[in-house]
Amino acid sequence: MKHKQPDNVHLSNDGNAVTIIDQTLLPNEIKNLNLRNAEELFEALYMLRIRGAPAIGIYAAYAIYILARQLPITDYPSFAENVEKYAKYLDSARPTAVNLSKQLNRMVACMKRHSESPIPTILEAMQSEANQIQQEDIEMCLAISEHGLSLIRDGFGIMTHCNAGPLATSLYGTGLGPILLGHERGMTLRVFCNETRPLLQGARLTTYELSKAGVDCTLICDNMASIVMKEGKIDAIFVGCDRVARNGDVANKIGTSGVAILAKHYGIPFYVCCPSSTIDLDCETGAEIEIEQRPPDEIKSLFFEKPMAPNAVKCYNPAFDVTDNNLITAIITENSILRQPFSFS
Amino acid sequence: MKHKQPDNVHLSNDGNAVTIIDQTLLPNEIKNLNLRNAEELFEALYMLRIRGAPAIGIYAAYAIYILARQLPITDYPSFAENVEKYAKYLDSARPTAVNLSKQLNRMVACMKRHSESPIPTILEAMQSEANQIQQEDIEMCLAISEHGLSLIRDGFGIMTHCNAGPLATSLYGTGLGPILLGHERGMTLRVFCNETRPLLQGARLTTYELSKAGVDCTLICDNMASIVMKEGKIDAIFVGCDRVARNGDVANKIGTSGVAILAKHYGIPFYVCCPSSTIDLDCETGAEIEIEQRPPDEIKSLFFEKPMAPNAVKCYNPAFDVTDNNLITAIITENSILRQPFSFS
Repeated sequence: MKHKQPDNVHLSNDGNAVTIIDQTLLPNEIKNLNLRNAEELFEALYMLRIRGAPAIGIYAAYAIYILARQLPITDYPSFAENVEKYAKYLDSARPTAVNLSKQLNRMVACMKRHSESPIPTILEAMQSEANQIQQEDIEMCLAISEHGLSLIRDGFGIMTHCNAGPLATSLYGTGLGPILLGHERGMTLRVFCNETRPLLQGARLTTYELSKAGVDCTLICDNMASIVMKEGKIDAIFVGCDRVARNGDVANKIGTSGVAILAKHYGIPFYVCCPSSTIDLDCETGAEIEIEQRPPDEIKSLFFEKPMAPNAVKCYNPAFDVTDNNLITAIITENSILRQPFSFS
Repeated sequence: MKHKQPDNVHLSNDGNAVTIIDQTLLPNEIKNLNLRNAEELFEALYMLRIRGAPAIGIYAAYAIYILARQLPITDYPSFAENVEKYAKYLDSARPTAVNLSKQLNRMVACMKRHSESPIPTILEAMQSEANQIQQEDIEMCLAISEHGLSLIRDGFGIMTHCNAGPLATSLYGTGLGPILLGHERGMTLRVFCNETRPLLQGARLTTYELSKAGVDCTLICDNMASIVMKEGKIDAIFVGCDRVARNGDVANKIGTSGVAILAKHYGIPFYVCCPSSTIDLDCETGAEIEIEQRPPDEIKSLFFEKPMAPNAVKCYNPAFDVTDNNLITAIITENSILRQPFSFS
């Protein structure tokens, strides 16, 4: 099945560049970048102009193809050596992004599979592999969205946290997928987006994506989630996630566990959407998940005209939290809707 | 008992002006203003340079005294007429602030009680009345703080929301009172301050007050309250409040109800500190309390270098929420510690 082209990352029309939306400028400016050389392809990763695990994987696949096709067509060994050098270089832009190295490795493996072919044929295979990586992500997001949509009825009020939409993936997204698919099919949905401090992905990215798609959305501060639920505005909560433990504990953007506790208090279903590859069978429970601590300036200064707290004041700035399995109504993957008690193997 | 002079509002050393800290410049600049004429005294109220219900009441009392003493000493009727005109003028700066008109009325009543005396005697009585208003607030905050402190043990981790400290009152404050008093008596306390979006009173004012007093404090985003509680960092939560219904439902700064729900989930006591005058016997339950809705720009643009969401995106911006009585461990007033079930009469 052929889908429309995702606009967050794709090959340029002339096939000579990777085109992305510069996510650092959103929502104030929608600027497309056409990236051709190694330095600018690296810089966009490093500066988070492209972000989201699936999106950077797709981006890296196109990027390595674009760099490969600029190499002088000589012998395979020198071609392969340069491609691998570029792959290593791109990979170093986001050293902890598992999906980046995974898709770069897949592209290098594709090249090696065709080592007996002429270089133009290898390039064709690599282009096709990159397209395939993107198509697979679209199919997966679509399958997650279909499963999630089965839990939504026309007229629902839905709360989201952080950003798990098309910008971070390809089409549809994970947490936003069921909403966007439902809207596409004519449902009327009202979405409340938590702004998601300190980096404000909910404000900057989710409201941008939903309003662009024409979905009715309302921005709130994170601490307004309780009153919005209490007032009966929310029928279901959909979020993405970064990692699922074997017992169903879920690591996601900071604040997710608080939203889940409020949802339980008010009797509202809380759904987590993710590719099945997010389930980490090596991780027994959420207690094993290490939480990334980030710098205090993100809370005190970033985005603001002036610092918002005295210079000497300490900040505690965990980027993620763990939502206990008993707070989660269902975990939705491309394969199925999984309900409590969770036990993955 | 004579207390040290509060620095948020007091008479200037020469007795010719009201001295305040300009709260709009905090925490980046600590600037004292000496306000003398009617226009600048009005402007400071209107622009929220002085804020917090008790603080603006004390301020207004000093302000009307300062304006009265600048009047030409002629006959009482013309003196009284001018004082009342000034009182009306100051009152119009914050039309919904009940405490402002209450203390202005008290000052005018004081003047009238002395109408048979020479004007210098009336002025002395007014100065003494203004001092009395401030001393009464100090005594009340101190009594609240003593009651609250009886619930705190050395080494406690405490969470606060918004600002209920000396800047909004006189010395000690309400929600911050037990912490500041405990620190003064040599307790080691670790305080986590929720930044309190969208206006960031926790970041801008509470961390300023606590760090100035030398209390160990850590700033977090509102959506980090859950992980901080889960990690066992919090032994008790102290907040102030704006209004208490007869059944013990409490209206306070937006986000308070969410903190209370998390506290219940994690089994942490949740304490509300307020003057007994905050208990509104005309209000049966929290459902009767109207919630002030504020403009979307506070969420999207205020304080930021650039808007943080697309221009067309709607915001929902309630300034307060209601915390249900069953989430509250105790309500602490100057008179006593009240526990569930609450029933005020």
